[in-house]
Amino acid sequence: MKNRKLKNSELIRLDVESYRNAPKSNLIVILDNIRSLNNIGSVFRTSDAFLIKKIYLCGITAKPPHKDIHKTALGATENVIWEYVEDVMEVVRKLQNDNVFVAAVEQAENSIFLDDFTVNPEQTYAVVFGNEVKGVQQKVVSACDAVIEVPQFGTKHSLNIAVCAGVVLWSLFAQMKNSTNE
Amino acid sequence: MKNRKLKNSELIRLDVESYRNAPKSNLIVILDNIRSLNNIGSVFRTSDAFLIKKIYLCGITAKPPHKDIHKTALGATENVIWEYVEDVMEVVRKLQNDNVFVAAVEQAENSIFLDDFTVNPEQTYAVVFGNEVKGVQQKVVSACDAVIEVPQFGTKHSLNIAVCAGVVLWSLFAQMKNSTNE
Repeated sequence: MKNRKLKNSELIRLDVESYRNAPKSNLIVILDNIRSLNNIGSVFRTSDAFLIKKIYLCGITAKPPHKDIHKTALGATENVIWEYVEDVMEVVRKLQNDNVFVAAVEQAENSIFLDDFTVNPEQTYAVVFGNEVKGVQQKVVSACDAVIEVPQFGTKHSLNIAVCAGVVLWSLFAQMKNSTNE
Repeated sequence: MKNRKLKNSELIRLDVESYRNAPKSNLIVILDNIRSLNNIGSVFRTSDAFLIKKIYLCGITAKPPHKDIHKTALGATENVIWEYVEDVMEVVRKLQNDNVFVAAVEQAENSIFLDDFTVNPEQTYAVVFGNEVKGVQQKVVSACDAVIEVPQFGTKHSLNIAVCAGVVLWSLFAQMKNSTNE
């Protein structure tokens, strides 16, 4: 049979304990004022796949456990490390003090297109995603070390935030993965 | 103000008529047996951003207009060209006859990792996304010219299909975009 699909049991996946102990990618996610529980859960599921180091939940972003987060996270909230910190600025400052490079995902002056954003695999990055309607708050964007923009060419002003997080995290993760392999 | 956010009115976006007339990317999407209306709408929204040439809706995949598709598509179903064809195999064969390279997005033997999949910008590609639980049907995977796999390293077996479509379409689109620029 050509291109036989793999059974779930044939996929190389970690159990929860191995996941906890596995080396993570140098990527941190900050979710600020995310309104949709589905979006939050979806970012957890994506973060599980790309071995995200930690997710910070800030502002109105809801915390697990919650059944509507679970519906899209499918259990990923059990693995991926997360912390709720109300004030996103506190997280940004703390991470910057720890030499983490903090980038807002936004459409802003001086933004860098995602495909032009080159990671240094030795560096830890945090990426901030903001509210579904208002985006990342201006004070956060201004405090960040860079702004990453996903170039978009259609009629809509933005991507769904869970899709956007997938695109950005994959892009940074793939670069880091390939740098380590080389 | 550092990294001033752009207003919606400052973003370069097309109106519906300009969108219709704009040159599209050499990318076609096939959605086979997608159960979730939110996922379908979300793929429309992503396809708008990356100028997808056409979306084929097959099998149980619902057709616009539908309020739950609209909720996530946010009007993108008005721009992005789509067609419902019940039998996905008919679409795959038709596209292959038209020299389109058809790739299933799956986890299968002989799959190519997304970050190893290099596009030829002269070539048109169609990517098939399958059911949320069952994935792309084996007969479709076997009929495809290649299988693209998004490498995943956590505990879950797959990404959400709307996120997965975002990651794959962005990755192919960015390669094409950059080839045209060079």
